[in-house]
Amino acid sequence: MKVLILAAGLGKRMKSKYPKVVHKILGKPMINWVVDLGRKFGEVGVVVGHKAEVVKSYLPVDVKTYLQEPQLGTGHAVMCAKEFISPSDDVLILYGDVPLLKEETIQRLLETHTNARADVTVLTFIADDPTGYGRIVRENGKIRIVEHKDANEEQLRIKEVNSGIYVFSGKFLLDNIDKLSNNNAQGEYYLTDLIGMANNVETVLLNDPVQVFGVNDRVQLSQLEAVARDRILKELMLSGVTIVDPASTFIGPDVKIGIDTVIHPFTILEGEITIGEDCEIGPYTRIKNSILGNNVKVVRSEVEGAVIEDNVSVGPFSRLREGTILRENVKIGNFVETKKSTIGKNSKAQHLTYLGDATVGEDVNIGAGTITCNYDGYKKYQTFIGDNAFIGSNSSLVAPVKIGKGAIVGAGSVITEDVPDDALALGRARQVIKEDWAKLKREAMKNANHKE
Amino acid sequence: MKVLILAAGLGKRMKSKYPKVVHKILGKPMINWVVDLGRKFGEVGVVVGHKAEVVKSYLPVDVKTYLQEPQLGTGHAVMCAKEFISPSDDVLILYGDVPLLKEETIQRLLETHTNARADVTVLTFIADDPTGYGRIVRENGKIRIVEHKDANEEQLRIKEVNSGIYVFSGKFLLDNIDKLSNNNAQGEYYLTDLIGMANNVETVLLNDPVQVFGVNDRVQLSQLEAVARDRILKELMLSGVTIVDPASTFIGPDVKIGIDTVIHPFTILEGEITIGEDCEIGPYTRIKNSILGNNVKVVRSEVEGAVIEDNVSVGPFSRLREGTILRENVKIGNFVETKKSTIGKNSKAQHLTYLGDATVGEDVNIGAGTITCNYDGYKKYQTFIGDNAFIGSNSSLVAPVKIGKGAIVGAGSVITEDVPDDALALGRARQVIKEDWAKLKREAMKNANHKE
Amino acid sequence: MKVLILAAGLGKRMKSKYPKVVHKILGKPMINWVVDLGRKFGEVGVVVGHKAEVVKSYLPVDVKTYLQEPQLGTGHAVMCAKEFISPSDDVLILYGDVPLLKEETIQRLLETHTNARADVTVLTFIADDPTGYGRIVRENGKIRIVEHKDANEEQLRIKEVNSGIYVFSGKFLLDNIDKLSNNNAQGEYYLTDLIGMANNVETVLLNDPVQVFGVNDRVQLSQLEAVARDRILKELMLSGVTIVDPASTFIGPDVKIGIDTVIHPFTILEGEITIGEDCEIGPYTRIKNSILGNNVKVVRSEVEGAVIEDNVSVGPFSRLREGTILRENVKIGNFVETKKSTIGKNSKAQHLTYLGDATVGEDVNIGAGTITCNYDGYKKYQTFIGDNAFIGSNSSLVAPVKIGKGAIVGAGSVITEDVPDDALALGRARQVIKEDWAKLKREAMKNANHKE
Repeated sequence: MKVLILAAGLGKRMKSKYPKVVHKILGKPMINWVVDLGRKFGEVGVVVGHKAEVVKSYLPVDVKTYLQEPQLGTGHAVMCAKEFISPSDDVLILYGDVPLLKEETIQRLLETHTNARADVTVLTFIADDPTGYGRIVRENGKIRIVEHKDANEEQLRIKEVNSGIYVFSGKFLLDNIDKLSNNNAQGEYYLTDLIGMANNVETVLLNDPVQVFGVNDRVQLSQLEAVARDRILKELMLSGVTIVDPASTFIGPDVKIGIDTVIHPFTILEGEITIGEDCEIGPYTRIKNSILGNNVKVVRSEVEGAVIEDNVSVGPFSRLREGTILRENVKIGNFVETKKSTIGKNSKAQHLTYLGDATVGEDVNIGAGTITCNYDGYKKYQTFIGDNAFIGSNSSLVAPVKIGKGAIVGAGSVITEDVPDDALALGRARQVIKEDWAKLKREAMKNANHKE
Repeated sequence: MKVLILAAGLGKRMKSKYPKVVHKILGKPMINWVVDLGRKFGEVGVVVGHKAEVVKSYLPVDVKTYLQEPQLGTGHAVMCAKEFISPSDDVLILYGDVPLLKEETIQRLLETHTNARADVTVLTFIADDPTGYGRIVRENGKIRIVEHKDANEEQLRIKEVNSGIYVFSGKFLLDNIDKLSNNNAQGEYYLTDLIGMANNVETVLLNDPVQVFGVNDRVQLSQLEAVARDRILKELMLSGVTIVDPASTFIGPDVKIGIDTVIHPFTILEGEITIGEDCEIGPYTRIKNSILGNNVKVVRSEVEGAVIEDNVSVGPFSRLREGTILRENVKIGNFVETKKSTIGKNSKAQHLTYLGDATVGEDVNIGAGTITCNYDGYKKYQTFIGDNAFIGSNSSLVAPVKIGKGAIVGAGSVITEDVPDDALALGRARQVIKEDWAKLKREAMKNANHKE
Repeated sequence: MKVLILAAGLGKRMKSKYPKVVHKILGKPMINWVVDLGRKFGEVGVVVGHKAEVVKSYLPVDVKTYLQEPQLGTGHAVMCAKEFISPSDDVLILYGDVPLLKEETIQRLLETHTNARADVTVLTFIADDPTGYGRIVRENGKIRIVEHKDANEEQLRIKEVNSGIYVFSGKFLLDNIDKLSNNNAQGEYYLTDLIGMANNVETVLLNDPVQVFGVNDRVQLSQLEAVARDRILKELMLSGVTIVDPASTFIGPDVKIGIDTVIHPFTILEGEITIGEDCEIGPYTRIKNSILGNNVKVVRSEVEGAVIEDNVSVGPFSRLREGTILRENVKIGNFVETKKSTIGKNSKAQHLTYLGDATVGEDVNIGAGTITCNYDGYKKYQTFIGDNAFIGSNSSLVAPVKIGKGAIVGAGSVITEDVPDDALALGRARQVIKEDWAKLKREAMKNANHKE
């Protein structure tokens, strides 16, 4: 089975410097929605044209591309990919700007096609207003497509129309593709014309036309985003995930969530994510490409590229960056940032802290305002903190540095040398009191103001 | 008056480990919506069954519960609670998964019931599609309910249907409840069958059927959440509160707000909250169980268990935790956390600060980066800061510690001992300059890179 | 051309201490929407009455106001502004609580009026339910308005109604305004009565009636807010801006955005803003009165009164306050606040930092936890940081202070004196280790607990 995706078009109404098919739905470029779908059914080829190099940069490496230059219609696009087609494989035709087709629809299309040994099987739908669409005309047991402009009065009344999604027999396609002509007003080659050349045409009727809606401008882009979202959220809800407010929740197509997890409003889950059971995610939380265990709480935080084990609590106002690993029962609190750091079981960093390039043991308490000074202006260095250590507030740990197990760092210390296990490390000046200094200053300021 | 709430069901389509009635609408479990409503009318009893212990843990202590085990229908549920019923009291039947019934509807139901001295009064509504519902059949001045499966063609056309909400005469109920039979396909006892045994049946027609919609899956849960929200927000708007964007505003049923307060988008108000007049709440603000005076601003912040007096400004990026008290004119700024702390009139903590277990006087300025070191790894300690004190930036106040009135703490100090009134306290090293050190390092790094 | 805006009404159903017309749509008071629109067509006068002083405080200084006291109807309002009207100018009548009229509609109205040399031209619309509206009655080539209460059966069926928006010939208005009578049930003077006195009445039919919807309560206020938002967002999308989720995006009328910029959910853009091309704004971002170049990212941040040049990255959790200028390639990271500060090209302040009243050079690295101590309790002072300087983490820069070019400040230092170019500055105590101190303390605490 071959899947050929047409993605050479300009998308003028997008008013964009970028090709239409790389614009995103739920954080995933449209072309990748279609490629991921196609790959479930066979080898994928993509016809590129307008800004071909940009489109290619979004494709997986194993996807073959074919250049259509200039762009002379859908039939011409397939001609440009002729070497991709083999007489022994069926060819499914998809479009880079029609991102919401469902797997089950293609399944149905292929089954009908195979059972009927058809030359071509057309996916059709009922259009409330069929103006502009090719009508599905059934006469004498034969099916053909009549373009809107060529339709007679009776045909104009037909509401079943061509979606443009087809599966062709590879042999039929190869035998006929070169017979297409561009003898029409636009001077283009239309794939639709192949239907007229086929003896055995089948159709599959789609009940849910939004699956074949294309994107022509950014209003439609936002509308399909809403449809995609709604579809994913309904599935999640019916599978046992609570979505408090679907209207303000954004969950991408590659997110898995366990039952009894609650997704609170204003939450965005993008990329590849796995979330366990009984979690509370949000409100105001954005997570990208991460793995969360069971009973994890992430409130008003940014999480990217993190692994979070069971019973961890994150937020509010936390930021977990790439390479963060939080072991069981960790607590990350407000105004805390972690990056390329592993935090051991039961450890806590709850206030105003930066942990970068750090390895923190178990049962460690990181005081408020602690900063791992991991960068000297030239290179980045590692910080190690042993189990049961206690880092006092406002400490600066100048990496590379190692704090031993059970060690204590006094509040406000700058730690530049390793601290042995069980030791106390201090790096601060002794407190000095200047009696009445503040009072004298106050009076001096008052006098100064009087003079001014 | 007795109010009996049926809450024994499984809720299979919720796909949940938890009983259906503890799932939440606007942060409040469904069963608590119904219990709170019921308590306005009389003594409340709850029939529990599926995960009875979990449901009971959500109930107020004075609510009686009755175990229905196994669950053999609504009639059986009432049988299980027979001791709750007295012949002299009417009994209102409610459902733990029908959370949005209005007080005024029950009022109407009870009035009709009392005026008519009815055996039972049924709350009915007009269903666009009555399929599946029991039809309200009126014949010869009598009212009865015919189940969908038993209805003849004429009855099937009736659109007035049974909501399942009834008020019974206690005597009638006690006299007849044991006459119910489970001689039906499901082998269950149906409360509806009692209607057929009554001589004097009344109905009250509900214009707004959403009040009796039940929750069967999480899609419906999210839909009722939207209805509940809409209802609360409309009432607030008509009473003089500006809700900039109702679609992104979540306000629970136990929130009171004064006129001319503006609620900005992306705001969540949960639990018991009182907010005064002329406040600006949000955007991006979440408040739980707190009291706010007049003219308070809370922008992009998390507030829980706080008391905030007039003219206070909080946020953006502030977090007020349990036990925070902010007196008049206080300003709490960005990246500031408070916990179990009282901040006196006109005092300010505007940047990157943690105030925990602290008592701050009036007219105090807390510099950026100030941290109360309230925990030594073993216990929590108190910090006291006197009126008119000035805490320099990046200070660490190691509790227990007391900063006197009018005292100044120098920037970057670690304060471990009490500071007298009007004194200056410093705890920092003198600045040292190493001329050209940075230049030499730069050149050394350059050479090192060359060699690499 | 004169534009007279009626804004004297009470707005009782707003339940507000403030006059209706100062309530806001997309952060801009309704009266200012109307004034800004009016000024595109001529000199603007406003009739004020209820809380006149408050309304006047919202008006540009060059707008003339006329007091209507008491408020005796629309005709009376115009009488009160008679001196504003001149016989040689047309007069457009607008309303302070009808904020969403479009410029193009007025354009059409004026063209029709001028071409027809009409006495008055009425903006009309088709009402689905015309109850209560004045009907547009066309008889014998003449147009007149029949109020609902005066309409006969045939007239009641007319669906074209009076919007209340008119353009009058100044001469006609001056000649006739004093002929209005208040001989009616309300005892008020109605502008509509003038139509009956005119010989040459024209109409312009509005296809989009929402343009003339007025605000009577806060539910309607929120509805018009949604309409205004939708209109602005659609225009932006069609012009080449991606709005990922229009439902959670708030963009004011005075915001300009370049193509291929993406606005992510939960974003609020208020006031006068210019944003370049290829930016990523949001999610969770609020910007007010700022200028952004191309390819700027602002994630989950608050920005007000800032200038941000090309390729700058801000957020998440950043706050840029009034007077912030970020030159090209600057990076501002999490939990960082800037105020009245200029940050030079390529410089970075990425974690837990406060920069106030600071001038930072190019290629500077500001370490985590750096604080400019710009306030001593009495005055604010400036901090200067030279090009290529490196500020170590948790440093306190006590202003006024100057850090030289290429200088290094060691982590945890309190800098109170200027640092020369290329020098290293340290202000911290040497680290001290107390072996086994933590262990002894641990054991002591254990013993203490045993005894307790």
